Amino acid sequence: MSADTLLHQLAQRVGERLHETRTLLATAESCTGGMIASAITGIAGSSGWFERGFVTYSNQAKNEMLGVPVSLIDTHGAVSEPVARAMAEGALCHSQAQVTLSVTGIAGPGGGTETKPVGTVAFGWSNGTHTQVETRHFKGDRQQVRHQAALHALHGLLRLLDQRDTDGSTLSRRQR
Amino acid sequence: MSADTLLHQLAQRVGERLHETRTLLATAESCTGGMIASAITGIAGSSGWFERGFVTYSNQAKNEMLGVPVSLIDTHGAVSEPVARAMAEGALCHSQAQVTLSVTGIAGPGGGTETKPVGTVAFGWSNGTHTQVETRHFKGDRQQVRHQAALHALHGLLRLLDQRDTDGSTLSRRQR
Repeated sequence: MSADTLLHQLAQRVGERLHETRTLLATAESCTGGMIASAITGIAGSSGWFERGFVTYSNQAKNEMLGVPVSLIDTHGAVSEPVARAMAEGALCHSQAQVTLSVTGIAGPGGGTETKPVGTVAFGWSNGTHTQVETRHFKGDRQQVRHQAALHALHGLLRLLDQRDTDGSTLSRRQR
Repeated sequence: MSADTLLHQLAQRVGERLHETRTLLATAESCTGGMIASAITGIAGSSGWFERGFVTYSNQAKNEMLGVPVSLIDTHGAVSEPVARAMAEGALCHSQAQVTLSVTGIAGPGGGTETKPVGTVAFGWSNGTHTQVETRHFKGDRQQVRHQAALHALHGLLRLLDQRDTDGSTLSRRQR
């Protein structure tokens, strides 16, 4: 199955879960550059669960659109869990959404360092109560890294939505 | 050739032109939902010419992220040339970019009306001096409409960049 088909199918599942839980999503993307928002909005009816997307490619965009402190980027680097956390939480603050995800990474082929090689991607997921962050190292070329990052971000979102069901959080717009 | 391949090739040409003219781009997308930003950032080195993207899916996002007046949306509808113009010009005001494009349309299958059937898409392109707007009607399913809209937006951007070469505008970051 092609990477695009996988992403489309996952976006469909995510849409169904968001729809069921009456939850609005916002995305904050750096290295995936809108790929996740595009997959989500590829599903008919997505205006019912997708509110907005931030493609914060430059550091200035991360600061201005999401309120990520410049000092945080200077200290930890744009590809780091503290920045991924600030992006996910900033997307919550700067949207009408109840859940957010963030992705910041090095898709390559340039930009890698010894400590953060090409394929390093930091993720964040937030529902206002909990924010989870994670770093993964993907193999492959630029497009493969971006695809894997997009898939991982959506899998993490599904996990967060399922946790909400389990722990009885009531962040969704309407009580079920 | 697949629609994705076409889009990738066009994004490559756009990237080369932006790089040559030392121009930064920002995108403001509604119905394409990040597809254009994703195609642009699929090209290695795109941080050199892509600054940020706004995926303004809800009307509130168009207002809050780009400054599109709510009254303009109420009067003309979100899918209209005045709103496309305000999105393109708003993206200029709310970014570090020198050129912007905007897309707002009805990808379907729902949402169409008699005067604005599914496939109606309004576009805007701005370089600060000139803003161009246009409405097109595309045939096909949701994904086909979105793909055609993304391709059309990038073709329009190339046209705007070529005009800048012709009319000697000096909006680019550095003089050539």
